[in-house]
Amino acid sequence: MRPLILHPDRLFPADPRTRDIARALYAEVALLPIVSPHGHTDPAWFATDANWSNASELLLAPDHYLYRMLYSHGVPLEALGVPAQGVAPATDPRESWRLFAEHYHLFRGTPSRLWLDHVFAEVFGFEIALEPATADRYFDTIGEKLASDAFRPRALFDRFGIEFLATTEGAHDSLDHHAAIRASGWGGRVVTTYRPDGVIDVEHEVFPRAMARFAELTSEDVWSWPGYLAAHRKRRADFRAAGATATDHGHPTAATANLSPAEAEALFRKITGGDWTPADAELFRAQMLTEMAAMSVEDGMVMQIHPGSFRNHNGGLFASHGRDKGADIPTRTDYVTALKPLLDRFGTSTELSIILFTLDESTYARELAPLAGHYPCLKLGPAWWFHDSPEGMRRFREMTTETAGFYNTVGFNDDTRAFLSIPARHDVARRVDCGFLARLVAEHRLEDWEAAELAHELTSGLVRRAYRI
Amino acid sequence: MRPLILHPDRLFPADPRTRDIARALYAEVALLPIVSPHGHTDPAWFATDANWSNASELLLAPDHYLYRMLYSHGVPLEALGVPAQGVAPATDPRESWRLFAEHYHLFRGTPSRLWLDHVFAEVFGFEIALEPATADRYFDTIGEKLASDAFRPRALFDRFGIEFLATTEGAHDSLDHHAAIRASGWGGRVVTTYRPDGVIDVEHEVFPRAMARFAELTSEDVWSWPGYLAAHRKRRADFRAAGATATDHGHPTAATANLSPAEAEALFRKITGGDWTPADAELFRAQMLTEMAAMSVEDGMVMQIHPGSFRNHNGGLFASHGRDKGADIPTRTDYVTALKPLLDRFGTSTELSIILFTLDESTYARELAPLAGHYPCLKLGPAWWFHDSPEGMRRFREMTTETAGFYNTVGFNDDTRAFLSIPARHDVARRVDCGFLARLVAEHRLEDWEAAELAHELTSGLVRRAYRI
Amino acid sequence: MRPLILHPDRLFPADPRTRDIARALYAEVALLPIVSPHGHTDPAWFATDANWSNASELLLAPDHYLYRMLYSHGVPLEALGVPAQGVAPATDPRESWRLFAEHYHLFRGTPSRLWLDHVFAEVFGFEIALEPATADRYFDTIGEKLASDAFRPRALFDRFGIEFLATTEGAHDSLDHHAAIRASGWGGRVVTTYRPDGVIDVEHEVFPRAMARFAELTSEDVWSWPGYLAAHRKRRADFRAAGATATDHGHPTAATANLSPAEAEALFRKITGGDWTPADAELFRAQMLTEMAAMSVEDGMVMQIHPGSFRNHNGGLFASHGRDKGADIPTRTDYVTALKPLLDRFGTSTELSIILFTLDESTYARELAPLAGHYPCLKLGPAWWFHDSPEGMRRFREMTTETAGFYNTVGFNDDTRAFLSIPARHDVARRVDCGFLARLVAEHRLEDWEAAELAHELTSGLVRRAYRI
Repeated sequence: MRPLILHPDRLFPADPRTRDIARALYAEVALLPIVSPHGHTDPAWFATDANWSNASELLLAPDHYLYRMLYSHGVPLEALGVPAQGVAPATDPRESWRLFAEHYHLFRGTPSRLWLDHVFAEVFGFEIALEPATADRYFDTIGEKLASDAFRPRALFDRFGIEFLATTEGAHDSLDHHAAIRASGWGGRVVTTYRPDGVIDVEHEVFPRAMARFAELTSEDVWSWPGYLAAHRKRRADFRAAGATATDHGHPTAATANLSPAEAEALFRKITGGDWTPADAELFRAQMLTEMAAMSVEDGMVMQIHPGSFRNHNGGLFASHGRDKGADIPTRTDYVTALKPLLDRFGTSTELSIILFTLDESTYARELAPLAGHYPCLKLGPAWWFHDSPEGMRRFREMTTETAGFYNTVGFNDDTRAFLSIPARHDVARRVDCGFLARLVAEHRLEDWEAAELAHELTSGLVRRAYRI
Repeated sequence: MRPLILHPDRLFPADPRTRDIARALYAEVALLPIVSPHGHTDPAWFATDANWSNASELLLAPDHYLYRMLYSHGVPLEALGVPAQGVAPATDPRESWRLFAEHYHLFRGTPSRLWLDHVFAEVFGFEIALEPATADRYFDTIGEKLASDAFRPRALFDRFGIEFLATTEGAHDSLDHHAAIRASGWGGRVVTTYRPDGVIDVEHEVFPRAMARFAELTSEDVWSWPGYLAAHRKRRADFRAAGATATDHGHPTAATANLSPAEAEALFRKITGGDWTPADAELFRAQMLTEMAAMSVEDGMVMQIHPGSFRNHNGGLFASHGRDKGADIPTRTDYVTALKPLLDRFGTSTELSIILFTLDESTYARELAPLAGHYPCLKLGPAWWFHDSPEGMRRFREMTTETAGFYNTVGFNDDTRAFLSIPARHDVARRVDCGFLARLVAEHRLEDWEAAELAHELTSGLVRRAYRI
Repeated sequence: MRPLILHPDRLFPADPRTRDIARALYAEVALLPIVSPHGHTDPAWFATDANWSNASELLLAPDHYLYRMLYSHGVPLEALGVPAQGVAPATDPRESWRLFAEHYHLFRGTPSRLWLDHVFAEVFGFEIALEPATADRYFDTIGEKLASDAFRPRALFDRFGIEFLATTEGAHDSLDHHAAIRASGWGGRVVTTYRPDGVIDVEHEVFPRAMARFAELTSEDVWSWPGYLAAHRKRRADFRAAGATATDHGHPTAATANLSPAEAEALFRKITGGDWTPADAELFRAQMLTEMAAMSVEDGMVMQIHPGSFRNHNGGLFASHGRDKGADIPTRTDYVTALKPLLDRFGTSTELSIILFTLDESTYARELAPLAGHYPCLKLGPAWWFHDSPEGMRRFREMTTETAGFYNTVGFNDDTRAFLSIPARHDVARRVDCGFLARLVAEHRLEDWEAAELAHELTSGLVRRAYRI
């Protein structure tokens, strides 16, 4: 059996002088509380504080970073506890875990490996590495610990030093869990985020159901344009009451539009009338980004735009297993033309704040840094999804800093539903940022005291200001 | 107060062995004279040799790199001495300077910070850093120095060791300042560059006025196609007489066209007749690049093509403050298809020389290096504008050298109107190039004597040959 | 005269600790046999085992990496032994070689320089560098050696430690040389690869001739759709009999299609009827990728897709010298939309294996790594052509590993017709990979024993499995 060691200098640059600087910077921020302004944990966990079940169901089956890699090597999803639609998950969780352990070498060089080893060592206390020979020991130990009080969601929340955690709910979500969290008297700050895609994207199969629920929750005539807008306003207020400071928009592109009220209403009638083309659907999403910006100017919610993912690319898998099965693939994304309609309307606002994300790194230096380095309303979200990794974060800093500076960025997002990995992810981000700052200091492009100030900003200051926490 | 220190090893790689090599290479070229073949300084400075006024008016208000960053953080341009159109600049320069000092931390990690600190330390002799507490001291000292003889334009030109400085004038510019410089008997070599965009881009609001002036200056019937071409020939001759060795073309795209004479004439009639579409305007710009290439084959002027900037993106700011206010945003740029019509006509020429620039770094390795590594008439301009920075220059070398080699590049352009920063910019380029060469030597990919030869070429040899100086 | 030294640490990172790790990893794989699953050497060499003639004809005239660089500096191709079409090559090979030596400095910083110096030092035993003063000595020594038995193709094949070498032949190629190799009793394993572009791409001038020969070789009615498909099946079987394990497809784009049989047949009639548009030609190529995938599912041949090169970009040169003269230029390439039709049909297959290549590095992290990290049938080919270089390989690993892992890649391809450079190219790849792994170890992102295992996989394991050798 191999030892599992988290080296204290991991992720720092190898050059000894640079590493010393990185180590000193990291020491300043390593223990700061976690502020997680964007993620996908399940609020039910914190509402019920129920124990999780076992390693496979908690760590493997919900994590598309993991099962997509095994799937790419021919492992059927069913064998990992990810069932086909309408089929009961028949897999024994222990068998899934063994299969995972057998393929764990596939993750060498990936962030999943870094995160998981951190979870294994720091959260569960393992001192031996995961491999086929230790799979059962892992499965048993994790199972036992998860059954204990110390590993219930709220206990871990506190142990992880989380000061603020945002989840993401749809416009058609009841927010009951958030209400339960607040009613429970527990001190953990778990808030929601307004994600209205379900009632905006007519191409999503949830649209009819979401609209019906939207109507129900708001008592508005959501099938009329004024009623639809009023319903958004009501729900945004509900979300703000549940602690939300931000909205989130996951669109195929960054397209925005700035139609006249009459044009917008006519388009809405087409969309809701069912007689729309894909171009209409795209234009409606585009227009709604601008409508959401208008409401953000009113109510102060920060907008997040996450464009550029081709969802459910694998047609066969979509048919058998449904959406969100690790088959979302990034596409080339334009921001300069796409955002202009919205910016022509709100670009000079100093009230509005929009955080832009990308899956297309070629836009970092070319489009996003120049946009954020000019417009008062634009900020750059951190390296996202496939790029939330040591090399991805390094490229983000290298390609955005010189034009946008550090102060037009917003700190780190863990963006995860893998709750146990949150400390690991923030730790990776802090280490990579300190490594980048250390290089600037070593190359005499920044003074050491400035780098220390920036390390605090990147960890703590920027995220609080950007998300209005 | 913090000290202001320019570390002698700044911008060199941190690894000690590589740094030693970089230091040795830099020592060979640090003091070579400055050859600046492309820039935007005002020839009036050298014609009149009048003193500049104060820190804000010289360093801040004309520098869109600086005020765009403050604007992105909500500082109104007016407060920085950049007035709205038709409004007298009411701001007290000292107040602007204080505001700038207050926000100086925003520039951490940006090239502006490197350039400014160099200007503060080397040009003005400051030994304390700019911060709110030192803003007045800075403003006063700079003001006093600027009022002295030693800080007049020609004195600084000599002190900076500038051997050649090209400015940029429009086809409709009188060149009076250049005439005055030559008539003055002063020995400084300040030449012009032929930039005919104003009489080519019918979408630019200056077009009618520029054409009228073009007619006046050339006594040609510029509203007829033969007269228009003849006018270009005359003005190119005027510019060559004013020392120009190059033309410059700042187009939205790199599109070229190769119409028949009859088609070109018909298009010209459409453009000048006023009944044109945006596609016509684009086609005319495209055709004119090819016409300019034809004239370059005749008169030997080197062509520079600077495509890919979406000008004046911020509609609100454009309405209030007009063009060139830091709101130009790069866009994705194609070269392979775009340049083909021109290259089909002149691609095998060994007389023609075209220097290509880009704001889209994804084209470095994919399009530009392969093009320049094949066509005799193509060379690669240095990392431009947003990419004129340590990381940007490093990426340029890393992504172009292996396919195009060093010898299809043309040395450094400072491309600036910030005259005082010229030595700083050339110094950054020399340091980054020496750092890149040092890595190749440290990795045994280049011999040390070759690197020394290349350091000289990148600083001095290539620019002279490429710009036919 | 300068010494020619191949430093034992060349291409390793400069940081001493990282270099030590890289050196240790490289020691594990430096002497492993060469497996070359994709290349363009001439099977006639191994069939006849005839001596090569001289330095220029062997090393210079066939190598577009070399003559394109000299051409870009104004050297006419004729002077390098690359004649215009229909013109006898009148150039004295010694004169070509002198010209090459005169321009050898142009290759500083390029992989050609690394490869050639390796060939000069390791294959020919030179201890002095190539420069004008040594050109004749080089020419004479190389000529003498090439005339000896030790430098005949089979002797070098053995000396180079080549275990497997794939060439590439068209669907209309007789495979006689491969038959001769097998009949000769020589033990070297030289196999073919099925490249049917000539009978698929109706825009290629060889199409009519290739189709005629295709008919002849298969005795099928290749002008009917069923006969055409049957002919492909027959030839694939011929190629498999000649050792082929893979097919190769060099298309302008990665477009695939999934037409119904009736639509496909109608399209085929259009293509062969001569009344097709460029869009038809593109759609037919797209459909044929899917047809080839269907046949690969049947016969187990691995597909390689090499898209994104704009062939023969230089119109003037194409007219005078014909195709493949160093004027192919990469273009922006889309994979996400392009591959979907094929993937919708075969994406979940675990039988099919497709190896994707790109000339557009912006797709590494954005499209290719996410696709390969999900689809069981997709793997990533190594850094290709212009990117087959130290920096290009480094970027490939940095941009693909975190999402696709190492195990969705396929080892190295030398992709060369420059037989003598094969060991040099594999050596560069091994060194760069070991350098990359060493950085991961130095940054504690990988254990040393894992890196050693990976070094073996990247050199030897992955290529054998991916190409089913």
